[in-house]
Amino acid sequence: MRVHIELKKEEDRSYDIVIDSIEDIELGTKAVIVTNPKIAGLHLGYLLPRLRARELYIVTLPDGEDYKNEESLNYLLDRLFDHKIDRKSTLVAFGGGVIGDMTGFAAAIYQRGIDFIQIPTTLLSQVDASVGGKTGINNRFGKNLIGAFWQPRAVYIDPYFLTTLPKREFAAGVAEIIKMAVVFDREFFEWLKHNRLDDEANIKEAIKRSVELKAAVVAKDEREGGVRASLNYGHTFAHVIENETGYKRFLHGEAVAIGMVMANRLAVKKGLLSQEEAKEIEELLASYGLPTCYEVSDAQSFYEQFYLDKKTQSSKIKFVLPKGIGDFLITDQVERDEVLDVLREFERC
Amino acid sequence: MRVHIELKKEEDRSYDIVIDSIEDIELGTKAVIVTNPKIAGLHLGYLLPRLRARELYIVTLPDGEDYKNEESLNYLLDRLFDHKIDRKSTLVAFGGGVIGDMTGFAAAIYQRGIDFIQIPTTLLSQVDASVGGKTGINNRFGKNLIGAFWQPRAVYIDPYFLTTLPKREFAAGVAEIIKMAVVFDREFFEWLKHNRLDDEANIKEAIKRSVELKAAVVAKDEREGGVRASLNYGHTFAHVIENETGYKRFLHGEAVAIGMVMANRLAVKKGLLSQEEAKEIEELLASYGLPTCYEVSDAQSFYEQFYLDKKTQSSKIKFVLPKGIGDFLITDQVERDEVLDVLREFERC
Repeated sequence: MRVHIELKKEEDRSYDIVIDSIEDIELGTKAVIVTNPKIAGLHLGYLLPRLRARELYIVTLPDGEDYKNEESLNYLLDRLFDHKIDRKSTLVAFGGGVIGDMTGFAAAIYQRGIDFIQIPTTLLSQVDASVGGKTGINNRFGKNLIGAFWQPRAVYIDPYFLTTLPKREFAAGVAEIIKMAVVFDREFFEWLKHNRLDDEANIKEAIKRSVELKAAVVAKDEREGGVRASLNYGHTFAHVIENETGYKRFLHGEAVAIGMVMANRLAVKKGLLSQEEAKEIEELLASYGLPTCYEVSDAQSFYEQFYLDKKTQSSKIKFVLPKGIGDFLITDQVERDEVLDVLREFERC
Repeated sequence: MRVHIELKKEEDRSYDIVIDSIEDIELGTKAVIVTNPKIAGLHLGYLLPRLRARELYIVTLPDGEDYKNEESLNYLLDRLFDHKIDRKSTLVAFGGGVIGDMTGFAAAIYQRGIDFIQIPTTLLSQVDASVGGKTGINNRFGKNLIGAFWQPRAVYIDPYFLTTLPKREFAAGVAEIIKMAVVFDREFFEWLKHNRLDDEANIKEAIKRSVELKAAVVAKDEREGGVRASLNYGHTFAHVIENETGYKRFLHGEAVAIGMVMANRLAVKKGLLSQEEAKEIEELLASYGLPTCYEVSDAQSFYEQFYLDKKTQSSKIKFVLPKGIGDFLITDQVERDEVLDVLREFERC
């Protein structure tokens, strides 16, 4: 005996990303802004007059990746219960990637899922975390190991928040924008070479282009099987760098910048990218003050750390390599010695 | 500026419920059976030869609703990390509703979601938990308040497991079957009056019919807005009874049986159900040894507890009332005094 359970396709989970000064946002009956103390101090005065909700609560979580954990999540969930948040309420993630990931995950599991919107305040979270639906927390086994795919109802990207962003953090966001251009869009890369992103019209345009590119990839591969891996260009190397430096020395985007330069060297070795193209990318990164080198103290040990990454499911590591500028190749046809050669080039910076 | 994010409709999440003796189940490379010590002792010997997986792990969680909490969930997640379970692995929920809810929730949030299958061993979980995708845990604020909708890849309902089920637990499952018949299917109700469920062919037929009925409701209302509420027939009263008795005196299905009788009295009062129909239902419940009465010590206080239920979003309580046998009405047009009158009828049993 057998019963086939046919499920209604999930209703419309598509949404808009608005890249502009925030005007009125209608939040319905009950809403909770989730933020950190720093963003609250800097920007709640700007945001609050622009939100409409009958009841509005504010919960602050401690700032930083170290606090993207179960304890903060439980603290947040407890506050939601305290305030009798119901299934029709809305959470507002107001901050960078850490706030976005935790608020999104809380929204995903609170009473089996409620709405949330994102108001990302860092450039990195504006271009990266606003598309893809990834939410989650870290634990002692690693980063983002507990989580869910949960889509926001809307994302509001207001360049105003970038005015208070430290230069290094701004540049770290630019690294992700450059990454998108190198992997997917030659024309965008050319545009980036000639348009500095400290200009507001330019940054809006660059965010829009990055978000569109990421959206196109995610639409093809929502739950991460194939093409979405292309977004990991630079990340395979970056994760090891972050690991070796205890996530302290570099911002994520900075590690990705170095990781891109490393991946490029490998791509040059494989004949996928020309020396000139590699140089162009490195120069664009450097022009924003991004690091492009990291002294690999032990190439062997660096290499072995690839295998600790949760994304490595088989014994073969997959590398995302640029194929010229604007295209990419995902390949596991890379010899250990080729990678070690590249890593050894980084022994001195 | 605005970017519209169009999401691919979630891939095929439909699945089969197989109601038969389990033959071979292919689980791929890595799988984890999640069960409790009692079911493990009784039935792993039966199940294990029927499973195929290159690597198979067994994790036991303490038995009972009291342990459907964060601590057990974290214990389970930690074991998954210990065993390096990856995104292609499968969890097997092998037990009753508690095991199913926790295993499903762990599957929903482990690395943002992995596959799970259900092998429910109680009649209640076979008819109830195998359809609907509800997973979750309790916390100090209430039941099932943290969770996710996450669908299994398949459900295997093997009547063999019912042979060791205590009589009371069997009857509690029958209560849910009778509930489905009363709310949705007059013909099924007639069939139940003439076919005892201690017969294997009959129980398979009854499970199949219940599961089909529930699937039809869930297909219309996957995330619980409207018609799915019909499944709560008897539950509004049952929750208060369970609450007042500390979830100790009655099994859930037993409380639902009493709750149905209470709802029926209200339906009779509203002219929706005849005295005779109410009697037929009560007799069918009683014929399985199910309780049909509970001494309400304080009607007033009982009534007030309706408002503590998380499902009550507004000030009006919605009652699911049978409209004859085989149809139902969801209504908030019920006066407080009508309900109090019904509750007072239960002051003596």
